[in-house]
Amino acid sequence: MPSVFLKHPFMSQRAVAECDDDAMVGAMLAFELALAEVQEASGAVPAGVSQQMRQQLERAKVNVAEVAEGISSGGNVAIPFVKQSRALLADENKRYWHQGATSQDVVDSALMLLLKPRLAALDDLLLRCRSAAVAIMDTHIDTPMVGRTLMQQALPITFGVKVAHWAIGLEQARRRLSAVKLPVQFGGAVGVHSGWDKLGLEWMDALAERLGLAGPVLPWHTDRYPIHALGTAFDAVAGAAEKIALDVSLLTQTEVGEVAEPSAPGMGESSSMPHKRNPVRSALIRGAARQVHGHTNVLINAAAQPLERGLGEWHAEWSPLIESALLVEGALEQLAVLLEGLEVNPVNMQRNLAATGGGIMAEPVARLLTPILGADKAKAVSAAAAETSRLESRPYSDVLADHPDVKGVVGAEDLRNACNPALYLGSSSAQVLRAKEWLKSS
Amino acid sequence: MPSVFLKHPFMSQRAVAECDDDAMVGAMLAFELALAEVQEASGAVPAGVSQQMRQQLERAKVNVAEVAEGISSGGNVAIPFVKQSRALLADENKRYWHQGATSQDVVDSALMLLLKPRLAALDDLLLRCRSAAVAIMDTHIDTPMVGRTLMQQALPITFGVKVAHWAIGLEQARRRLSAVKLPVQFGGAVGVHSGWDKLGLEWMDALAERLGLAGPVLPWHTDRYPIHALGTAFDAVAGAAEKIALDVSLLTQTEVGEVAEPSAPGMGESSSMPHKRNPVRSALIRGAARQVHGHTNVLINAAAQPLERGLGEWHAEWSPLIESALLVEGALEQLAVLLEGLEVNPVNMQRNLAATGGGIMAEPVARLLTPILGADKAKAVSAAAAETSRLESRPYSDVLADHPDVKGVVGAEDLRNACNPALYLGSSSAQVLRAKEWLKSS
Amino acid sequence: MPSVFLKHPFMSQRAVAECDDDAMVGAMLAFELALAEVQEASGAVPAGVSQQMRQQLERAKVNVAEVAEGISSGGNVAIPFVKQSRALLADENKRYWHQGATSQDVVDSALMLLLKPRLAALDDLLLRCRSAAVAIMDTHIDTPMVGRTLMQQALPITFGVKVAHWAIGLEQARRRLSAVKLPVQFGGAVGVHSGWDKLGLEWMDALAERLGLAGPVLPWHTDRYPIHALGTAFDAVAGAAEKIALDVSLLTQTEVGEVAEPSAPGMGESSSMPHKRNPVRSALIRGAARQVHGHTNVLINAAAQPLERGLGEWHAEWSPLIESALLVEGALEQLAVLLEGLEVNPVNMQRNLAATGGGIMAEPVARLLTPILGADKAKAVSAAAAETSRLESRPYSDVLADHPDVKGVVGAEDLRNACNPALYLGSSSAQVLRAKEWLKSS
Amino acid sequence: MPSVFLKHPFMSQRAVAECDDDAMVGAMLAFELALAEVQEASGAVPAGVSQQMRQQLERAKVNVAEVAEGISSGGNVAIPFVKQSRALLADENKRYWHQGATSQDVVDSALMLLLKPRLAALDDLLLRCRSAAVAIMDTHIDTPMVGRTLMQQALPITFGVKVAHWAIGLEQARRRLSAVKLPVQFGGAVGVHSGWDKLGLEWMDALAERLGLAGPVLPWHTDRYPIHALGTAFDAVAGAAEKIALDVSLLTQTEVGEVAEPSAPGMGESSSMPHKRNPVRSALIRGAARQVHGHTNVLINAAAQPLERGLGEWHAEWSPLIESALLVEGALEQLAVLLEGLEVNPVNMQRNLAATGGGIMAEPVARLLTPILGADKAKAVSAAAAETSRLESRPYSDVLADHPDVKGVVGAEDLRNACNPALYLGSSSAQVLRAKEWLKSS
Repeated sequence: MPSVFLKHPFMSQRAVAECDDDAMVGAMLAFELALAEVQEASGAVPAGVSQQMRQQLERAKVNVAEVAEGISSGGNVAIPFVKQSRALLADENKRYWHQGATSQDVVDSALMLLLKPRLAALDDLLLRCRSAAVAIMDTHIDTPMVGRTLMQQALPITFGVKVAHWAIGLEQARRRLSAVKLPVQFGGAVGVHSGWDKLGLEWMDALAERLGLAGPVLPWHTDRYPIHALGTAFDAVAGAAEKIALDVSLLTQTEVGEVAEPSAPGMGESSSMPHKRNPVRSALIRGAARQVHGHTNVLINAAAQPLERGLGEWHAEWSPLIESALLVEGALEQLAVLLEGLEVNPVNMQRNLAATGGGIMAEPVARLLTPILGADKAKAVSAAAAETSRLESRPYSDVLADHPDVKGVVGAEDLRNACNPALYLGSSSAQVLRAKEWLKSS
Repeated sequence: MPSVFLKHPFMSQRAVAECDDDAMVGAMLAFELALAEVQEASGAVPAGVSQQMRQQLERAKVNVAEVAEGISSGGNVAIPFVKQSRALLADENKRYWHQGATSQDVVDSALMLLLKPRLAALDDLLLRCRSAAVAIMDTHIDTPMVGRTLMQQALPITFGVKVAHWAIGLEQARRRLSAVKLPVQFGGAVGVHSGWDKLGLEWMDALAERLGLAGPVLPWHTDRYPIHALGTAFDAVAGAAEKIALDVSLLTQTEVGEVAEPSAPGMGESSSMPHKRNPVRSALIRGAARQVHGHTNVLINAAAQPLERGLGEWHAEWSPLIESALLVEGALEQLAVLLEGLEVNPVNMQRNLAATGGGIMAEPVARLLTPILGADKAKAVSAAAAETSRLESRPYSDVLADHPDVKGVVGAEDLRNACNPALYLGSSSAQVLRAKEWLKSS
Repeated sequence: MPSVFLKHPFMSQRAVAECDDDAMVGAMLAFELALAEVQEASGAVPAGVSQQMRQQLERAKVNVAEVAEGISSGGNVAIPFVKQSRALLADENKRYWHQGATSQDVVDSALMLLLKPRLAALDDLLLRCRSAAVAIMDTHIDTPMVGRTLMQQALPITFGVKVAHWAIGLEQARRRLSAVKLPVQFGGAVGVHSGWDKLGLEWMDALAERLGLAGPVLPWHTDRYPIHALGTAFDAVAGAAEKIALDVSLLTQTEVGEVAEPSAPGMGESSSMPHKRNPVRSALIRGAARQVHGHTNVLINAAAQPLERGLGEWHAEWSPLIESALLVEGALEQLAVLLEGLEVNPVNMQRNLAATGGGIMAEPVARLLTPILGADKAKAVSAAAAETSRLESRPYSDVLADHPDVKGVVGAEDLRNACNPALYLGSSSAQVLRAKEWLKSS
Repeated sequence: MPSVFLKHPFMSQRAVAECDDDAMVGAMLAFELALAEVQEASGAVPAGVSQQMRQQLERAKVNVAEVAEGISSGGNVAIPFVKQSRALLADENKRYWHQGATSQDVVDSALMLLLKPRLAALDDLLLRCRSAAVAIMDTHIDTPMVGRTLMQQALPITFGVKVAHWAIGLEQARRRLSAVKLPVQFGGAVGVHSGWDKLGLEWMDALAERLGLAGPVLPWHTDRYPIHALGTAFDAVAGAAEKIALDVSLLTQTEVGEVAEPSAPGMGESSSMPHKRNPVRSALIRGAARQVHGHTNVLINAAAQPLERGLGEWHAEWSPLIESALLVEGALEQLAVLLEGLEVNPVNMQRNLAATGGGIMAEPVARLLTPILGADKAKAVSAAAAETSRLESRPYSDVLADHPDVKGVVGAEDLRNACNPALYLGSSSAQVLRAKEWLKSS
């Protein structure tokens, strides 16, 4: 295989292990055995045969390497898998193996089976992230920091409300993902259960139930909505995680220093520069998310598949779909640790709030002065004082207090209050409380 | 503007007209006026002011060309719009205009307002397509045609069931789109309603109600989930339409001739080749869908936006989002006409069913012969007879009837039945009925 | 049309004006007239006819609105254009109009004609950017600043070398774009000059020469390499510009303040926050580049076109191709102004170099101490002193000089030198000189 | 690793084996050893040390599994690789290992080293495809078939000229790819050879030469043009191959039957339908190409990287870049076999030429009749006769000969000639000859 060094750092290793060749073979076996059981229950397979099949295939294992070799001649893994697994059965059972099914039924259903534990794992991770975010929101509900638009300092916010926005983003994506269905695929050669008439739909429904998958309205061999829904839901999670990683990257900049990724032995260290602590988790999250977007691009460009089976469009879905899941899970594993251990530095937040010498408070100061000086003069005074404050490194409220147009006219405490970012936080705490309500609402 | 020849053929012209500069100005006005009304209701604007504003702005119109000129210096349309519209107000009202709002509030909310009638129009079109599809399903529930996998003839299906799959695809996308929310955006400079504290969230909720938009949990200035949900839902519709257009393109091929796009004066004609009727609607649908995928790609790559306002990421969303809506609506306008007037040619479907000389019926024939000849011989005989039939252009059942291993062993009628595609349609009609149930379930 | 507010801020307005409907009609006319002239020269059109056509079409103008209306029935603009323009000709000339040509010949060639001045304009802009970059490289060849990896302070570089990397990036993209060919398309209905035999290729070559386009090896109606080459070359330019805009965005952050976009009246101002100067040009460049990537995505997914004419794939190319050009030109117009007027703040660069209290110089200090203290102790001492320096806000070299393991062992000047970022700039100036050599090499 | 079943069918297995973890470790070792040699040559490493290093690392192998485990803490493979490989060296040599280099130098250069044999292999495969295409062009230079636009029959071409267009498409992509440079990366921590001054650029050049890579103008740590050029060149090859696979898919349709993929034991067979031969190679090529487009999308969206090292953008490139190469090589391996063994069926081409009953020849017939009947009548007669011919299954020339307006007026042979597709092939053969000239021109 191509060097795992290049992709695995971004993937959940637990998830990778549960999506390997053995897992894929296991999922295909599960599909075929469940099919035999369902057919036996409806009388289309003699009693006891499905149990014999299960036993025979537990004793004689499918050879993964041989399956791999056989793929390219048929164009998908189900063909060599069915051939090999059938060969392991007793002769009298062979004809009941893969009965009424086609390759696409096996592959699509097996992919859904592989994804089922992934969706559960993603949900767990998203809940872990949600809890971690709520904890930060609680701790920092009143921690002022500067809000930045177009990456320029603008006006104060709190760290709590920033994290609330992160949490809302993640939770929306979680709810979307948790509503996505993983349907079984079963339609036979051309999707109409050729030769089995109405039994076909009954088996499809029974298969879904037995495998713990969703029952689709109809087979979806070239109606790829389920893949589109899955792929774009993965992408939504990736995007929500990526947003947090981007903010963390920006806030950990040396000159900003407002947060730091949790430290861990060796984590983020630079071999040559001892002073550095690189935001490695953010880099891995962002690297993963970008690859997910590329996979999503493949999936949405393959939504239209010709007639009763794709000719390359279907084939192109397999890897991007599964890898998206593994990358998103990898990103969330990093994100959970990152949020759970995020180092927050309120001192630096304070320092940065003061960086413009009060410039970011010019708006509330102007509001204070307007009734006295008129709007235009109020604006001019507040802006000029901010510049003086920055140049002379004096507190903004002191500079204002000394200003000839202000001195003796406005009370010192009023001035100090107007210059105090901690008193100009708008709905920050209300938003945190509202977010918490909503986050626990489902 | 760049030549409309290059893009407008793919867009709904009605929709384009409703998303022009005037419409955008109208949407921004609606937002600002609603904001003033909401603030007046809570006492933050003097009584009567919002009504005065409305009247003043009805008399003195915003100059669209001047707004356009002012965009690049501020980087978005709200800045010149607010400046110009404020200048049209009476002096004493100016300070209440755009109070507590920021550019992004105006632009994001205006985009949602533009999209609201588009979502309604898309839903209408999708319902029209659904009705048209159901009509075809009814008419052709028993019309046999060949199913094709990897674009090779495989086994019989019906035209009805094919259309049922189309309809399911469209309807799933319709339901997803109809569940997408169009939230108002209102957060002020850094998203925390600076200077207005808890009033901010109240105003946000009231604005949503007044404008007929959804109320978000929190402002979503850099939580772009709503855009991701919208963009990918548009894309899902595009993909479902594209699938149908692809099938129609394939089935209208000269050598296949099973369906034809509805004829219309001049539609699809070739200037140089009088015998041609080009599937122009399918070409326009496919052309539109591909452009939608490109727009979706921009949106999903812009999901992560820095801190409290994007720096290019936000800006990159505007056009792809709106154009996706216009392209999808254009595609559905074509698709509705296409489905409503689709010409279906059952004679050619029959002809094509016979094209392999029976080869596609080798499977059911083998099933018939297996109890008599054993599985291997049955397969060999059925395949050899198909080849003979094709080479000698004789009916498959006749060739089989003359075969030494079959003659006198299997009844002629049994043979004819096994060779009859119309008797090997599996769950086709059951699927049509099931699809109809589901389609009308919501 | 959809509101220009949403896209035009990102586009070159000059370029948009030169790619409007009139320009497209003009380009199609130029193609058809050149074709008639070429055919007249080879005797396939009577002498004088092409000149008459030109005069007739100068007098009687093609009606753009009627052309627009006719597009959707034929699926492309050439069909109504040919119909209308032919109607304006004298009857005896009508049969020679569009002779041997097909719609795709007209549209593809017209697009190439529209792009020709765009490529020239892009080259001019890229040369302007190159000159501006070289001027900065000269001025700041020795201006130290901190280099940042994973957005963390790392080691010193110069601003000159940073700009040299920008310039190399742009210039590579410029050279690629300038090597891209704009070929004429002429193949007739199915690309083989049906009915004209060998004259076809002669006319193709003559057309190319007459129109100032490249002569392709063969018609390229479904060999879309020329579009792929163009689209990805546009994208490369977009990417190079985007890199610069990203760096500028990061360096203009309030806490960093090392550069600022050129100020201009009203440019980048915030309506509510007087202290802000937003990096609007960077936002517009980044917004444009992201949209270009989306268009490129459409083009590369449409590279494979069926048989002798695309069915949607071709149609999907038109708008993304032209819009990519307009967006890249818009981005470069911003970039040229940005580079020509970039405000550079060496004082803040110095301040930021000192932000870690010397931590970024720990590596050279460790190198100085290693021969005396051994590698491990040298590293420990240099790191500890950096931490002390940062905490006590004392110069790194002073702290080191007082360290018991260093005091009296290493000379004060040696220490000061090792702590001086301006003496640890590596190949920065050599790189600037080398870059200048290469930049002027072509 | 995730199941190889899902991706490896699309990849060159030979190439995969040469890009595995061992190969990546080997490439990183090659970089570091070459660096030591280069530095030794310039006196920065004591004489003999690089040779000792080589011997020590031949004896004591780097443990791939341990390297893999160490990636996530540092965020890239170079960090654990350097740590481990240094540990295997004699103590006195350790300090010279990785001297002056940074992780990105190692990874980027190693990727280029992995790609070098891939570019050679791709060139070989493209030349094989070119030869195979030329052979088909020679054989079928005069084989008529119908040209199809918008997938409708249009006018005759030859199979030779179709393949010539394929060959031109591939060859353009080959020439672009063969011009792409694989530059060494060497810049140290922040890209300016900190601490080594002008030696840095000398070492960079020497490294390039020693490793057989291109020498860049400057280090390209965040000037990602080389990656953009590579990725889009891979994509161009993928697109050219995809075009051929699309045409083959369409021409192998059961109802068309003009070509067939080469047969091979088990290749393309369907487990359930004995009559089918699926175009599996085309499916694999199309599946690969679509995945390449997704990877390209990641690469072009990562072109802009912040400051002196990407934070996720760089990381996101690794896998898409290498997998694109492996997928393109896989696609070309399939394509070479496909072209070398393509089964061409001129009989079916003839049959399909006759499918419209002459309709496709109505244009030349009208041209023949125009001087006699006038243009309008000529068109009407030719079209009506085609319809009669199709309905009555009589040869078009016979129907025409019996037409009252034609009978006795036009000679029978003239009529037969005008109706003969083989006499209406335009520049088909001239194009083949011209293509061959150009193909061998480089």
